[in-house]
Amino acid sequence: MMREVAVIGTGMIRFGKYPDVSLADLGWPAARQAMDDAGVEPEDIGALFCGTGLGGPMPGQRIFGRLGMAGLPIINVENACSSGSSALNLGHTAIASGRYDIVMVMGVEKLTKFNGGPIPLEKEDWEVANGLVMPALYAMRARRYMHEHGATPEQLAGVVVKSRRHAALNPDAQLRGETTVEEVLASRMIADPFTLFQCCPTGDGAAAVVLCAADLASRYSPRPVKVQASHVASGHFESGPRDMTVPEITVRCAAETYEEAGLGPEDIDVAEVHDAFTSAELMYYEAFGFCRRGEAVQLLESGATSLGGRIPVNPSGGLLSKGHPVAATGAAQVVEVVRQLQGRCGKRQVEGAKVGLTHATGGGISGFDHGVCAIHIFTV
Amino acid sequence: MMREVAVIGTGMIRFGKYPDVSLADLGWPAARQAMDDAGVEPEDIGALFCGTGLGGPMPGQRIFGRLGMAGLPIINVENACSSGSSALNLGHTAIASGRYDIVMVMGVEKLTKFNGGPIPLEKEDWEVANGLVMPALYAMRARRYMHEHGATPEQLAGVVVKSRRHAALNPDAQLRGETTVEEVLASRMIADPFTLFQCCPTGDGAAAVVLCAADLASRYSPRPVKVQASHVASGHFESGPRDMTVPEITVRCAAETYEEAGLGPEDIDVAEVHDAFTSAELMYYEAFGFCRRGEAVQLLESGATSLGGRIPVNPSGGLLSKGHPVAATGAAQVVEVVRQLQGRCGKRQVEGAKVGLTHATGGGISGFDHGVCAIHIFTV
Repeated sequence: MMREVAVIGTGMIRFGKYPDVSLADLGWPAARQAMDDAGVEPEDIGALFCGTGLGGPMPGQRIFGRLGMAGLPIINVENACSSGSSALNLGHTAIASGRYDIVMVMGVEKLTKFNGGPIPLEKEDWEVANGLVMPALYAMRARRYMHEHGATPEQLAGVVVKSRRHAALNPDAQLRGETTVEEVLASRMIADPFTLFQCCPTGDGAAAVVLCAADLASRYSPRPVKVQASHVASGHFESGPRDMTVPEITVRCAAETYEEAGLGPEDIDVAEVHDAFTSAELMYYEAFGFCRRGEAVQLLESGATSLGGRIPVNPSGGLLSKGHPVAATGAAQVVEVVRQLQGRCGKRQVEGAKVGLTHATGGGISGFDHGVCAIHIFTV
Repeated sequence: MMREVAVIGTGMIRFGKYPDVSLADLGWPAARQAMDDAGVEPEDIGALFCGTGLGGPMPGQRIFGRLGMAGLPIINVENACSSGSSALNLGHTAIASGRYDIVMVMGVEKLTKFNGGPIPLEKEDWEVANGLVMPALYAMRARRYMHEHGATPEQLAGVVVKSRRHAALNPDAQLRGETTVEEVLASRMIADPFTLFQCCPTGDGAAAVVLCAADLASRYSPRPVKVQASHVASGHFESGPRDMTVPEITVRCAAETYEEAGLGPEDIDVAEVHDAFTSAELMYYEAFGFCRRGEAVQLLESGATSLGGRIPVNPSGGLLSKGHPVAATGAAQVVEVVRQLQGRCGKRQVEGAKVGLTHATGGGISGFDHGVCAIHIFTV
């Protein structure tokens, strides 16, 4: 019988560009904020799990050394854009096993170290070396989706308008100015149909959560949030024709996570999904069952996924506006959803939210096996 | 109550230089061998933990994709030289939690991708940038040890002679030719007192183990080996004078691991320790309590740590001769100790071995907080 696990503290720094700040100095303030929120001190923590995609050697040791926690078991996790949420999965397991009562999970990334240039390519990825970089890959999928379901550029741009409207209410978001469909479409072309505003920005960031055995959580937090399901899946495609409008790994991981939680799409009150590009958010509406296939634009335009709607998606602003410092994203999604379930989100609060979902997926540019997806469901 | 965990299968490739082989193609044969040894198939495995220090993005997904296992939960771990053994710690926890019955753990590294040049430096490590690279750091410690305890260059060289004598019996070792004290001292100087032969070689490698809940292990293996203790610690030094001849992180982690196992140094029948340089093996004899402080040379020269002695250390040849492909090392140590406890090591068999220990430690060049150490104790 696995022990149940709850989140008792959250912390993050505002995502943005901090070229003069080291990875360690990006990370520790988020960790300190999460401990303060939980009312715990370093000596209460049993182990540390640090997700980073491109952070170099021993990021966790560097970060937690700043807080006098370098003697603890520290394990660094690399799982591309799912690094932070994979770290959460490990932290969840570590408490579930009975090995620890309290652990900290972090996601941290510093993309400004590449000086505005591209993230270094892996030489094994021949498709990438030949030009199938992330915007190009997502653009192909978007074009196919537009072809299949009649979505227009203006409708894709609507995802950004919603995103910025939410982010304007989030002090931790990287891009906080509201925008219009016209502005989005007038920004420079990156990979047709994506203009600049339809791509998530690069930047730096850190987010942290403190996990606790659920039976002990009320000692620390007046509002612990239960981890109802924690699931990681990797990429896998059957041979044969593929449908580019269906994100297979997310569909499969979602089904497994819903089953683990004993819940379904109709139970979700708020979700943070991996909107790296506009079309991705639409496809994930369908992958999670928030609407039927081909009906994502209708769902968006109905207002259902906006604050005040039936199932607000990315109230934080999501990757498109809160920013996407690779590994920090998965952890920051959890920060947002936990705070939503605790009723602490001020003007962007999803009223009465009891069940929330986070979704971070990445890799998978190349041979389709190299993808990863991590989904968590939280309840109060 | 945590479930007990056993090793039911082991696999590794011979360590060496494989510049034309991709990381994925280094890894999968070790994983396949471990599954064959355990008598399990991909569909029996619940999750995969892949340790790599410098393997780039998503190594586990690349490797296990080759085996049709890319749909599983795969988590990549970076903990410098302890990456493989930290992955083992995660695999152990994952089974202990009840989440999975069987998991695979791998360590893999391809150092030839650096074309003989140095491993890229982390810019935050100013000491490294100023010349305190690994051989220099260990050399300072060695010089101090020689000063304190009167060890001579010839005595340090004796560690290599023993190492090569063991490796000559190990078909998976990178360097298999026997040597002499004279040859060791005549090899070119790297960092006084270390000549070339006193430094572990660089190379490529992969090693894998299959873990199973102990109560199910006998279904698969006639000779399961129990994981008696699994412990990871990170670096931490109190302020004040430091004794360079005492590897603090190993001393502390060893004490914690012995306590977890309910065993002490007198119980260990065979050990694989992190002999990255000759002096390191000597200091680890003392850190693990195999002898008293300052008496490591006597222990070595008594033959106690050679095959046939009281406590054979590094029967595989250790890092100095088996090789040291960073993350693969910790997993390969486990492969060796498990096979020793199963009585499968042929001419290098430690007769009657019932309790074995592995020790992988790394990082820690810089601010002393950045170290990591993972120790495991196995029993039959």
